Formats: sequence, structure tokens, C-alpha cells
Amino acid sequence: MSIFEQHESNVRSYSRRWPVVFSRATGSRLHTEDGRSWLDFFAGAGSLNYGHNNPVLKRALLDYIGNDGVTHALDMFTTARHDLLETLVEVVLQPRGLDHKVIFPGPGGANAVEAALKLARTITGRSEVVHFTNSFHGATLGALAVTGNPAHRRSAGVPLTGATPVPFDGQEGQSRPEYLARLLANPGSGLDRPAAVIVETVQAEGGVNVASTEWLRALADLCRQHEVLLIVDDIQAGCGRTGPFFSFEDAGIVPDMICLSKSIGGYGLPLALTLVRPELDVWRPGAHSGTFRGVNPAFVTATAALSAYWRDDALEKSTRARGEWIANALQDIVRPHAGLGLPTRGRGLVHGLVVGEGVADQVADEAFTRGLLVETAGPRDEVVKLLPPLTASDAELAEGLAILEQSLRAVAERTA
Amino acid sequence: MSIFEQHESNVRSYSRRWPVVFSRATGSRLHTEDGRSWLDFFAGAGSLNYGHNNPVLKRALLDYIGNDGVTHALDMFTTARHDLLETLVEVVLQPRGLDHKVIFPGPGGANAVEAALKLARTITGRSEVVHFTNSFHGATLGALAVTGNPAHRRSAGVPLTGATPVPFDGQEGQSRPEYLARLLANPGSGLDRPAAVIVETVQAEGGVNVASTEWLRALADLCRQHEVLLIVDDIQAGCGRTGPFFSFEDAGIVPDMICLSKSIGGYGLPLALTLVRPELDVWRPGAHSGTFRGVNPAFVTATAALSAYWRDDALEKSTRARGEWIANALQDIVRPHAGLGLPTRGRGLVHGLVVGEGVADQVADEAFTRGLLVETAGPRDEVVKLLPPLTASDAELAEGLAILEQSLRAVAERTA
Amino acid sequence: MSIFEQHESNVRSYSRRWPVVFSRATGSRLHTEDGRSWLDFFAGAGSLNYGHNNPVLKRALLDYIGNDGVTHALDMFTTARHDLLETLVEVVLQPRGLDHKVIFPGPGGANAVEAALKLARTITGRSEVVHFTNSFHGATLGALAVTGNPAHRRSAGVPLTGATPVPFDGQEGQSRPEYLARLLANPGSGLDRPAAVIVETVQAEGGVNVASTEWLRALADLCRQHEVLLIVDDIQAGCGRTGPFFSFEDAGIVPDMICLSKSIGGYGLPLALTLVRPELDVWRPGAHSGTFRGVNPAFVTATAALSAYWRDDALEKSTRARGEWIANALQDIVRPHAGLGLPTRGRGLVHGLVVGEGVADQVADEAFTRGLLVETAGPRDEVVKLLPPLTASDAELAEGLAILEQSLRAVAERTA
Amino acid sequence: MSIFEQHESNVRSYSRRWPVVFSRATGSRLHTEDGRSWLDFFAGAGSLNYGHNNPVLKRALLDYIGNDGVTHALDMFTTARHDLLETLVEVVLQPRGLDHKVIFPGPGGANAVEAALKLARTITGRSEVVHFTNSFHGATLGALAVTGNPAHRRSAGVPLTGATPVPFDGQEGQSRPEYLARLLANPGSGLDRPAAVIVETVQAEGGVNVASTEWLRALADLCRQHEVLLIVDDIQAGCGRTGPFFSFEDAGIVPDMICLSKSIGGYGLPLALTLVRPELDVWRPGAHSGTFRGVNPAFVTATAALSAYWRDDALEKSTRARGEWIANALQDIVRPHAGLGLPTRGRGLVHGLVVGEGVADQVADEAFTRGLLVETAGPRDEVVKLLPPLTASDAELAEGLAILEQSLRAVAERTA
Repeated sequence: MSIFEQHESNVRSYSRRWPVVFSRATGSRLHTEDGRSWLDFFAGAGSLNYGHNNPVLKRALLDYIGNDGVTHALDMFTTARHDLLETLVEVVLQPRGLDHKVIFPGPGGANAVEAALKLARTITGRSEVVHFTNSFHGATLGALAVTGNPAHRRSAGVPLTGATPVPFDGQEGQSRPEYLARLLANPGSGLDRPAAVIVETVQAEGGVNVASTEWLRALADLCRQHEVLLIVDDIQAGCGRTGPFFSFEDAGIVPDMICLSKSIGGYGLPLALTLVRPELDVWRPGAHSGTFRGVNPAFVTATAALSAYWRDDALEKSTRARGEWIANALQDIVRPHAGLGLPTRGRGLVHGLVVGEGVADQVADEAFTRGLLVETAGPRDEVVKLLPPLTASDAELAEGLAILEQSLRAVAERTA
Repeated sequence: MSIFEQHESNVRSYSRRWPVVFSRATGSRLHTEDGRSWLDFFAGAGSLNYGHNNPVLKRALLDYIGNDGVTHALDMFTTARHDLLETLVEVVLQPRGLDHKVIFPGPGGANAVEAALKLARTITGRSEVVHFTNSFHGATLGALAVTGNPAHRRSAGVPLTGATPVPFDGQEGQSRPEYLARLLANPGSGLDRPAAVIVETVQAEGGVNVASTEWLRALADLCRQHEVLLIVDDIQAGCGRTGPFFSFEDAGIVPDMICLSKSIGGYGLPLALTLVRPELDVWRPGAHSGTFRGVNPAFVTATAALSAYWRDDALEKSTRARGEWIANALQDIVRPHAGLGLPTRGRGLVHGLVVGEGVADQVADEAFTRGLLVETAGPRDEVVKLLPPLTASDAELAEGLAILEQSLRAVAERTA
Repeated sequence: MSIFEQHESNVRSYSRRWPVVFSRATGSRLHTEDGRSWLDFFAGAGSLNYGHNNPVLKRALLDYIGNDGVTHALDMFTTARHDLLETLVEVVLQPRGLDHKVIFPGPGGANAVEAALKLARTITGRSEVVHFTNSFHGATLGALAVTGNPAHRRSAGVPLTGATPVPFDGQEGQSRPEYLARLLANPGSGLDRPAAVIVETVQAEGGVNVASTEWLRALADLCRQHEVLLIVDDIQAGCGRTGPFFSFEDAGIVPDMICLSKSIGGYGLPLALTLVRPELDVWRPGAHSGTFRGVNPAFVTATAALSAYWRDDALEKSTRARGEWIANALQDIVRPHAGLGLPTRGRGLVHGLVVGEGVADQVADEAFTRGLLVETAGPRDEVVKLLPPLTASDAELAEGLAILEQSLRAVAERTA
Repeated sequence: MSIFEQHESNVRSYSRRWPVVFSRATGSRLHTEDGRSWLDFFAGAGSLNYGHNNPVLKRALLDYIGNDGVTHALDMFTTARHDLLETLVEVVLQPRGLDHKVIFPGPGGANAVEAALKLARTITGRSEVVHFTNSFHGATLGALAVTGNPAHRRSAGVPLTGATPVPFDGQEGQSRPEYLARLLANPGSGLDRPAAVIVETVQAEGGVNVASTEWLRALADLCRQHEVLLIVDDIQAGCGRTGPFFSFEDAGIVPDMICLSKSIGGYGLPLALTLVRPELDVWRPGAHSGTFRGVNPAFVTATAALSAYWRDDALEKSTRARGEWIANALQDIVRPHAGLGLPTRGRGLVHGLVVGEGVADQVADEAFTRGLLVETAGPRDEVVKLLPPLTASDAELAEGLAILEQSLRAVAERTA
């Protein structure tokens, strides 16, 4: 590992928690060269909803590369882009009554957010954007301004402007988006009328905070009433993570813009999309650009993933059902520690176990020694976050939960 | 094509110039399904220095994917990351006497720039960054602020702050970085001492403007004298585009930070690196993050490309020699139009033919009908930009130049 | 009046409500040349707490000017400056246990606020400032950013940055500064730790919103706990307007900085002061400047006013007592309109009658025709604001209240 | 003096250079209580063009106050305001063919600048403002952003945005506003099209840098050509300081906006005006406000000064003639020190003697011990700045120059 220590920047992070060198990956497992393997309840921070190197997608990808399909093409027309658009419309958008236009904003989630913010400001001629406490939207300067995470904000090196935080559902003592409603209604509030509100329906990085459908509906109503654009950042919670393809479907709302990335490419290759209602598609040609807007291999795996998993509702139903099962299992896991009053929360296959600052790190470390990768989340890293592949088997889910239970018990005993 | 017209955002750009659907690509050529092909003097805006689907890299990529190598891994340790770091140090950094640390800032060039700017501001505690007229550094908010291109700036939707433009070598009537020198020397200039200066040695998007080695050295001296960090954005001009691996090698300067992307991945897959002098590597773990910092297939192709092309100086020599040949050929091409006084300029295998606003578009369109893809550049799109793969054969270069000559002649005759 | 209409900018405001040309002023009355006069319950927006051309101050002023006392002296030492400092310390600061240093920030209240904000940011190295909904702190760019009034904010012509609004006492459904407390306590709130909180204890422009002493104490505690500076803008509520010299005295808090202007000069001449705790007085000589920091005639009237009115507690007691009387009188005035549920509020001699948008303007207009000047306030100009000179006689107060009662009745009858 | 040292903020500045307590002032002299007096070649930083306590103005002021003329009136109509407007139009604007509207922006110069910037941005919908190296426009946040002085900029405590500095006439190696011309002409320059250019025709604080009439005309042409508003900050150079009432008259240009303050009030009382071409007067009533927009005693002295000094061209001619005399006298003063190559420069009665950093302070100190107040200026305080009252007698001018000559000689001898 000395090559990493000597030559990689100090900024590296996950490799400190999991100091082994992975070489191969299949399904729900990562393997090292010496034959050890870990069950992965992290799933590329939500980028691997279909597991590592999913064989269906892998087949499509190998065929495409083997046949010299176009790899890199900026925003030129390609067969792979055509097929992705067609499949996205047919499998995802039309069945949900959405007629959004598709922007290819660049390779990562931050690009999807930056494009949405730029476009929202251009459309409205306003500069302010409302975001939520404990939000995370990316590390580029525009996305960072609407992010709550303090370590990331500080690393900007400049004051972050054009963004005002308001309480997420249930945070800062607020229910309903009442506080925002009052700010918007009061002309003297000091909040300039915003271009947009950007929201994650489940704040995964922020600690697996789940917005209720009522809250989301009220938020959407509020935006409509004040002619403020509603941007749903579905980068981590979308692509089926909570059950339905879009995390906001149960709320019955139609966002003005939707940001997708992480699992939209299916295979872990960089891809991001910004969906925008057609009447808001006001950019002139070339107004937003970027070199990696045409990662065609990711188009291919994205198309294969949509075709394989979203032409029927099997995955959605499975995720919902197993989500309930995990929610119950987590209750069982915390029950012996009832004195500690540990909350659990989640939707579909994203769940959080709130064990406290410092403790969550210990639980994750214990899990690692027992063969499970789990991340921590929340403003104080106080939450153990479970993010298994949607394609994990029931046995794998059970195995991961068992390790989690042991890890929590080990930490509890040590600190008792 | 109706799927694109109906469902893709109006912001799409290159597909308007080249309204065909490409399906396959090999070496210096792009192919459509109906069997037509185009010689590619655009090369993914500099991302395909080794040609489309380079067979050496393709083999490595297929093997890696076929063997279930890790695809997505954030900044976890992987074998592919190890090999890339090792090869980069051995083949690129050490031979050039560089001991920079490697930041994996995210998948695209804008990420490399955003990371450099954030880090420079954090290190110095200053907010201002100096950039150059006609610069292009990316479309995310931080990178956009140091970009000159007006269409991109406008699309931000908010005032861009923290950046001051000064004249690039030979622009705005200035030679030597004299103007910047005076601003820095005058405490009453109104330019707050900047955190950094960010520069492209060849402004490819800005119109193929080439900084002289003297100017670069004077700029580096100036930065050192005023304790301002020097960031070279080598995203388009690096990776051998001008001959040597880094475009600044002939100037003999050592930038504090170097941004790489585009061809560093070799195969057109998203990858970006920010190199930083070790004493400036001050970020805490996790201070900068992003989901697609570990695109391992791109690590594999990057490693293969470095090994195949940079263990000796054959490619560098070839690029230098052919660069001179193209420079002469362009002189021959413009000679019949001497009355128009058309400048040509370039270094290595990036060249520009300055034909004027509107005219450059016509030349590019004529070239397309004749089987050649060339882009336009410059603040008024007044330059035809040649960016062939470094691996193009001499015959391909000659073919492309012949088409260019015909295209220019056709436009000249039409407008005569 | 045509000279005004032809040559003065359209931005003029009060002259539209009161379209007469005043020539002389005495005590609580303004007079026109043709002999008409108006009772003034506006008092220069709080600048004339001691009435128009108060004879005690007038005598001192005429003597000073007659004897060629220094008029203009930037921040040079003068006898008048000496006397003001001595009197301020002896009469105001020392008796209240305050050891603040005195900054002469420029001639107006906005200067006092700008100086406080600049200094707070310099001291802390932070950029963000928290202000309150419905705040008003001035029309220069720094002061405007912490102002809630929407018409003023819009006129900036640029996005206002570095400021976050939170709910004032009782506003936006919040009591106690609970919301701010939560934002500060949550590291992921998205609110960067602020340099300062700036607050008016009574938001006069904002609609005569009165902060409770409990709220102010909790706010001061919160600031201390998070090492955030507390700035009290006492420009309109200070100088005895609410009873005690400083409006925050009853709350028993000690602000880090205090902004004074309006009535501190006593006679309506421009003067402003920023008081700062001695350990925070970190500016180097000359770091903040301005031409009119030494308006010596205003020093003279300020000194005379402090000597005449603040060496004992007579004025304070009178203001408190008459404040209660007015509060009761306003209750009597609204009682006949009980169906409308009109709130009244205030402290000392600043009171508001909340009659609603549009209605307040009508009441003020009716009052004008009956010989009384009263202004409207609040984000929708929904409040009739009473701000009589502290030196108004009981008879004048009664007269003004009677006109107000008639005016309200007239409007009520007309709209009934 | 202990009262100052104990209770006034460390930020005080002029009192350090001149550590005596002034009590009275007449004409060109300031007096202390113990009977000493100083000849004043500082004149309130240009606020006392008509001398201290000018008897004509004093008479008008005493009468006005004695008769209970309105003192404070925000922007209400008053007789004094009427008379000032009428006189300004009749004596100043109409004779010069100007039809600008008058904004009363607040009591000081920074208010005039803030109002101009806010209005320019509102009119154009653009945020960027171009200013010049070594400029000084005020200490409030908006004015500070267009100021070059580094100590003042630093004291903001936040990055200053929305402003780009370009070289003043003859500075940074530039003649003609060629550099700005090129930035504006190049769409890729990175300078967003500005709302306005703000310029001082003589940078007094910046070191008595004098723009040529040719440069000013070229600048005005450039602004017109690019539809950028031209704001002349005539706060220090206006009101006859350079000879004509406005400093730009000789250049024959018509600025879109003109900022006046300092000597416009005549007597050293705070007053500022922003003049704006009528078609640009787009603000809604009340869009810009401030408590001290109606300092009626200053209206009275302003009216008296305009009437006394600007109904004929005697003062203008005198200032021009004596300016040439001083220019020659300064040449005589520096001649004995020819080896040092000391430049002198100026127009009318503002002159600078460039003696170098540190030396200028010594010369000013020597002058003080000899009975003369002179200030230093320039980004390094390297210039001795002469700013006598326009009403100084020839004998006083000669006396001041003699002291200056002695002071320079004393410093030269000491350092030889």
C-alpha cells in the first residue's frame, strides 16, 4: 500500500476505513487478491443498485466494446445515445406521465446539479436557491453552496453564496415546510424570491433522513404557489433505491427538474442526467457543455439496466417488501439496547441506524473486521447507513444484518 | 433522429454540426450504421489522443471487465488504482523530476479544476484567482468563473465572482505578463492578492492561442515572486498533445498544481487528476469528494496508455515532427488566399486556422460533407481547430489536410 | 413645487405622502410658509427625539458656529469631539457599566452598520452574518444585505450575499430564538458559523415588532455560546426611544457592538457611532475611513442633548410612563373596531397600529389632512407607526392620538 | 488627550499625524485653544473649498438656524431644498447644458457612489462595474468594491465582488483606455459586459493622478460604444477644485451619472448628490432611502456657496491661474533635489509631490512642526498632497509652499 501512502493525496477517505486493496467484484461482494471478500452494503454510495459487474449489463458492455461501439462522443448523436433515450422514455418517463427533456450535463452527479441550478437561475432571472439542512448535492462550487455538510463547505475556501438553508422534514423542530412557507409569504423576510428549491426525498449522506409524502406534496404546492422551480436531486435515492424508480413517485409530485446519476449508468460507470420540463428547456445550443457528456459505454449499461429491471414492477415490489423486512430487522437489532433509544429509519433499501457520534464509526469498523462494508452518515457521522445492492439475495441481506447485529453488540459491550 | 429532437434538450450542440448517428469508431474514424465514415480531426475534443478504441487499450479493458475487475470504488484502494499510480509515477512524474501528489477529484476536467481552485484558496486563505482572456476551464460554477467564453459565462445565471481576467500571451495588445506584473506590484491596483493563477499553455477552446515558453517562464517567476500558486490546466494540451507529455515541459517550469483529464484515461472514459506539490497537500481526509473518483476501467486504460506510449519518446518525437509538418502544410493551404491574411498557429498536433467569424463554421460544414470532422474555436468561433489523434497515420493527416484545403477553397470561391 | 417635479429624481418618497413645502420647525411641529402647521409624530424617523430645533441644543449650536468652532475635521482631535466623548462616557457608558470604545464610522446609520459588519468579519475571519426577518439596517450594499425590506433589497441590482435571515421574536411562527439555536447547533445545517448576529430590539421600519427581554437574553446567550458577535442596531430604538437610553437595557444584555445614529446628534444633524467592546477593537489606524466622521456641530448638539436629558432619569421615566399611557390609548382607539381585530404594539414612545395593507396608507393620509404626520411601516406598509418626539407635551400626545382616532374612524366608515 | 486614547477606537487616523486638539477654524487656518494655529493645505480632504467657516455661508447658516428653519426632513419638501435645487439648476446645470435629475442619496460621498452603482446595475441588469487602479470611492461595501486602496479593501472582511480594475490613464504601462477597449471588444475576455465604468478625473487619494482630457474623451466614447454607463465620481475633484465646477468640463464629456459630496455643502456639513441623466432615472419612489437625505442646514450653505462663487467665473479663473502658479512653484521646490527626480503633478488647486514611501510622511511631519497641515496620498503614501482652500489668499499659498520647501529640504538633509 505504500504507493498510495506516498503518492496519493492526503484527501483520500474510504481507503482509511477499509485499508485493503480490492481487485475483483461480483454481485454483492468485493474481493481482494489474497482471496478475502466483503459483503458490500455500501454499493458505491448508491451507484451499484444492480450489484457489482452485473452479468446482464456486463454482457452488453463487453459486446459494445468488443464491436468497437463509439466510446466517447461528447453530445454527438450515437446509436447508444439513441437507444438510451428511447428506453428511458419508453420504460421510465412515459409510463409515469412525464414529458421531461433530457440534458446530458456531464459525467457525475455534481454536473447534474450544476446544470439544474444554472438553468433554474437562467429561467427565472433570480439567483437565490433554497436547500435543506443536512443536504448533500456535490463538491463543485455551485453544488457545494446548496450542501449542508460542514467539512465540504469549509473546503470551498471562499464564502458560498446564492443559497439559503431551511429545515428538512422534521429537522430543526419543524414539521411541514411551514418555515419556508412563512419566509416566502413574508415580503420582508429577507429571503429574496428563490429561483428554485432543491431537495433530496431521502437525505442519504445527511443521515438517512426521510421526507414524508405529505411534506413533499406540501413543498411542491408551495413551489407552485410562489412560482419557484422544484428540483429533486434523485441521485442517491432514485433508480429504485426506495422502491419505485423515482423516489418521489409515492408523493405524486412532478418536479420541474430531476437530477439522476450514480445508478442510472447501471454498472458504476459515470453517467448523469438532468431532466427538465419541456417548457423550461430554454438554453441555447451549447450553453452548457463538458467533455464527458457522451460516455457511450455507460449509455449501453444504462439501457440494459432499464430494460432488465424496469419493464415490470418486480424489482420495485421486491425492494419495497425487503425494505419493510429490514426495517423490522433493525428494530430487532436495537431492541436489546433499548436503554440507548437508538432510532432507525429508512425507505426501500436505504436504512440508517442512529447510534451516535463516534459509535457509528466503531460499528462500521467492527463490521469491516467481520466481512461487511457499511458507511456512516449524518452531520456528525452518527448514523450507520445500509445501502445494499437492490439485487442482493435474501441470504446476503440476512448475513449483513447478522454482522451488523454482532458489530453493534461488540461495541455496546466494549463501551458498557 | 426524431428521438433526439423530441426528447433531448435544446442545449445539445455538436449534433447540430454533424447531424448523423455514429455507431462505431476505430482509430481516426467514426462510422455510421449505413456504412459511411468520417475522418476525425476533433478526437473527442482532445480526449482521444490515442484514437478511437485503440486496440492495445481495448484489450486491457476487455480483459479487466471480463475478469470482473472492480468497476466502481470511490476512493477505495484497488489493484487498478495501484497500477495507475505506480505507472504514473514511474513513467511520467519521476522522469520529469516531479514529486506531486495525486488527487482523484472526480470524473471530468471541471472536477480537476474545481479541486485545484478550492485547494489553492484553502492553502492561501485568499479568494481571488487570476485567469486569462479567452480561457476555458469548465462549466461548473467554480470553473466557469475563471472561464472567458461569454456564452458559457452567461449560462451561469448568477454573477461569477472571485476571478479576474488578465491578457493571455499576445492578447489585448500585451506581450510578457507585464500587465499582471504591474497589477501585482501596485498595492492600489484593486486586484486583491490572488490565491492562484490558472493558465492553459495552449488555449484550445479559446482559439488555439499558444503561450511562448518565455511568457510561461515569466509567469511562473511572477507567481513565485508574489507567492501566488500557479495552476496549469493541461486538460486539453497535456497527455502529449503538444509533443511532450506535459505541455509546459519545454518552458522548464514546475506548476504548483496540474489539472489533467480528457486523454489521461486513454480510451475516452471519464478520468481526471489534480497533481499538487506535496507541501501543498493540506486537505484533511474527505475534504473533497465525489462518487466517480474511482472509475477503475479508466484506470486500466490509462495505465495501458502510459505504458504503451510514454515509456520512450517515440510518440513525443513523432508529434513534434508532424506538428511542424502540419504547420507548414497549413501555410501552403492559406497561401492561395494570401489576400485574406489568414493566420495559422499551433504546437504539436493542435492547430488553428484563423478564417474569421462565420467563415470557420462554413469551412467546418464543407469539411463534414467531404468526410472530415473539424471543430471551430475562439471567442467568435473564428478559428478552424485541428485536433487529430496523435496516433493518426501520416496518410490520414494528409487526407484531412487535403479536405481542409478543398473546404477552404470552396468557401472562398462561394464568398468571392 | 414644479422645481421638485422637474429636477428631483423620481426616487423621492415622503414628499409624495405630504405634498407641502415645510419651512420652519419647532418642538413637535413643522410649519409651511403660508402659516399652516402639522403635529409631527414621525420625528425624522426617530432622529428628533428632542423635538425640532430644541432650544437648549439650538443655543449651543449657535454659540459654537458663531464662535467659529471647527465644523469639519475628519477624525482630527477637536474640543467638540473631546467633549462628546467625555460626556458619552460619563453620562451614558460608565453608569451602565459599559467600557466600549467609540468608532466614528461616518455621518449616517448605514455607516455605523457597515463599520460593525466589516469589523465583525475581520475579527472572526468569517463572512456570514445572521439577521432577522423584517429587519432594516440601511441602504448601502453591506447594510442592505442584512435588511429584509424587499423594495430596498431589489434596488441593489445585484444578489446580496453574506447574510442569512432567521425569524425575529414571534415571527414566522417562532418564539425564542429556537430556530437559530438549532441551525447553529447542527453542523450540517448549511449555515456557516456566522461572524455576527445583528438585531434591532424594536423593528421600527419592519412594523414596530418588539423583541421580548427573554428573547433578547436567549439570543445573547446563544451568541456567547457559539462565539458569534452580537450587534445591536440601536439606531432607531436607542437614545431613549423606548425609555432607557439603550433599548436593550431592560434585557440586561451587553452587546459586542452597538450602532447609534439618528437622535444621537440630538438636533437632526448627521452623526453615527459604533461602540465596540475594547477587546474587539482590532482595526489598524485608518482601516475604516470617511470624510464626514467629524461633524463637530453635531458633536456639540449631541453633547448638549446628553447633558440636558441623560444626567438624570426624568426623561426615561417620562417615556416609560407615557408609553404605557399611549398603549392604553391605542387600545381605546381600536376598541370600536373590535371586529377588525387590530393589534397594537410598542414600547416607550414607538408604537404601531396594525390596520392592514392599503388601510395604513389611508389612515396616514387622513391624519395628514387633519394636521398630523404619521408614517406607515411593515413589509406591506400595514402598520401606522407613531414616533412622537420624546419631548412632546402631554397635550400634543393627546392631540395626535385624537387625530389618529378620527382618521381611523374616517377610513373605517368609508370602507364600511 | 487621554480621553481620546482611552475611549476612541484604535482606528482613528489623522489625529496621529496631527496630535493637537483644534478648537476653532477660520478661512485657511485651524486653531488650538492655547493660541497656536496651522495653515490648512488639507481642507477637510477637499470638503472645505471655500475655507473654514466661510463668513458668507456662516451668515446664512446662523440666520437659518436662528429662525428655526427645518433642520432634518428626510426627503420631504422644504424651502431650503427648493432653493438648493433651483440654484443648482440655474447656476450649475443649465449653464453647462446638463439636464440631470438630482438624487439625494444620503449624507456622504459613499452614499452618492452606492446610489450610482445600485442604479446603474438596476438600469442595465448587469452586475459588473469597471473601476481604475488606485481609485478611491468610499468605505461602504459597494463603494469599497470599486476602490483600489489595499488597506481599505482588506478591512471589508469579505471578498469584494462585482468589480474589475483596469489601468487609469498612464498607469500599469497603459496610455489611452486601450486595455479596457480590448477587454470590451473581445467577447472571450472574461470581463462580463459591465453596468458602468466609475472614474475620478483626478485620483486625489490615489496619489493625485490626473487623467488627460483625451483619455477621458476616449473613455466616454468607449462607454457609449458598448452601452456602458459612465459615472464620474467628482466628490473630491468637483466643486471647482480643478478650476471649473465639474472636473470633467474641459474634456467636454457628459457623464451618465455624477457623484458630488465634500464641498457641495460648502461649509463642511454632510451633503451628497447623485446626478443622473433623466432617461436613466428609473427608480421607483422609495427604492433608495436613508435618514440623512435632508440636511437642510447643508442645503442652505450649499445654496449660499453656489450663489456666492459660481454665478460668475472669477473663482474658476483664479483657481486655474493659481494652479499654474503652484505647478511652477513645485518645480522650483524640487529643482534643488533634481538628483532625486521627484515628479510633481496636479490640476487647479490639487497637487502632488511624489517624494517616495516613508519620505512623504516625514515631509508632512516636518510641515506640521512648521505650521502647515498637508496629507500624504498614493498606494504607498508616497505623495505629499496639496489641497488648500480655493479661497486661500496668495500670501497663504506662498506661505504654505515656503513651509513645504523647508520641510522637504529638512528631510533631504537628514537623509543625505
